[in-house]
Amino acid sequence: MFLLQRLDNTKKKLKGQIANVLTLLNLSLGAFAILYTIQNQLQLALLFITIAAVFDRLDGAVARKLNSTSELGKQLDSLSDMISFGVAPALLIHQAILFEFGFAGAFFAIVFIVCGAIRLAKFNITEANGFFYGLPITAAGCILTIMTLLVAYIPEYVFMINTLILAFLMISPFKVKKM
Amino acid sequence: MFLLQRLDNTKKKLKGQIANVLTLLNLSLGAFAILYTIQNQLQLALLFITIAAVFDRLDGAVARKLNSTSELGKQLDSLSDMISFGVAPALLIHQAILFEFGFAGAFFAIVFIVCGAIRLAKFNITEANGFFYGLPITAAGCILTIMTLLVAYIPEYVFMINTLILAFLMISPFKVKKM
Repeated sequence: MFLLQRLDNTKKKLKGQIANVLTLLNLSLGAFAILYTIQNQLQLALLFITIAAVFDRLDGAVARKLNSTSELGKQLDSLSDMISFGVAPALLIHQAILFEFGFAGAFFAIVFIVCGAIRLAKFNITEANGFFYGLPITAAGCILTIMTLLVAYIPEYVFMINTLILAFLMISPFKVKKM
Repeated sequence: MFLLQRLDNTKKKLKGQIANVLTLLNLSLGAFAILYTIQNQLQLALLFITIAAVFDRLDGAVARKLNSTSELGKQLDSLSDMISFGVAPALLIHQAILFEFGFAGAFFAIVFIVCGAIRLAKFNITEANGFFYGLPITAAGCILTIMTLLVAYIPEYVFMINTLILAFLMISPFKVKKM
């Protein structure tokens, strides 16, 4: 009986860790994307952020499916989102186009990261009620990432404005229904 | 009377935001350090991480002094620490020396970031009792940053081992008294 209970506890713990492992994979993919950005392999960085977004959907789904959402998972999730959809896309767009604006380009990339952090911190202390407030950092980061594909077709200043708009949408108080 | 009360509330809110502004400055300095690392200006990156460490001490001190510690501040603090003392030092040591090991070097830098995230997530869900568990990410990140000054004097493999040791110390369960 005691052994069965221990086995059951171990199973529960393992189940609880599956979603966290997926979250840390998401974070690692974001970190790899940053390393590829440093090496100027921007296409690979774009690919890794995209895969990170898939893992981000997956870990939430797995946690709900296995009924293993946890406070630790929530914290890890926001740290991963910060890297994969805050820092990585901001650096990618900076290296793809914003660097042409010198300090102003760097400043705009950093405003995006700062607003992402504010969004995540606010989200973490808000009770879940089926709604998001402001544009989720995952969405903002993915839009910024996909925008880098358009660098050859759109005037440079559009990317500056777009980065700033996405940053402010993240900290705006409008409501979005959770999907 | 009503006006006085409103003024008092506004003062309290402003006081509460001072520490958060310092935290976001810490985060911005970390993000600048990453941008300098990308541009291979490693000395400047080192300088910015060092200044971020000063701001990190400052925001905690200010929050305690003004009696304005908050849950939002705690969340912002951990996101800032992730960038300034997790991602920035790992990228810096990668560009300074670990890149020579190819994929293995990138992998070690990412292990450092992942362990940093686990450390921060665990810390955020632990009740404060005057102790840290495991090496704080601020200390690990600063040691890694300072180590880059020794690149010309120490064999390459030492940096690999050092990065791994610091990563594991962050997720180790030993106790450290808070300073």
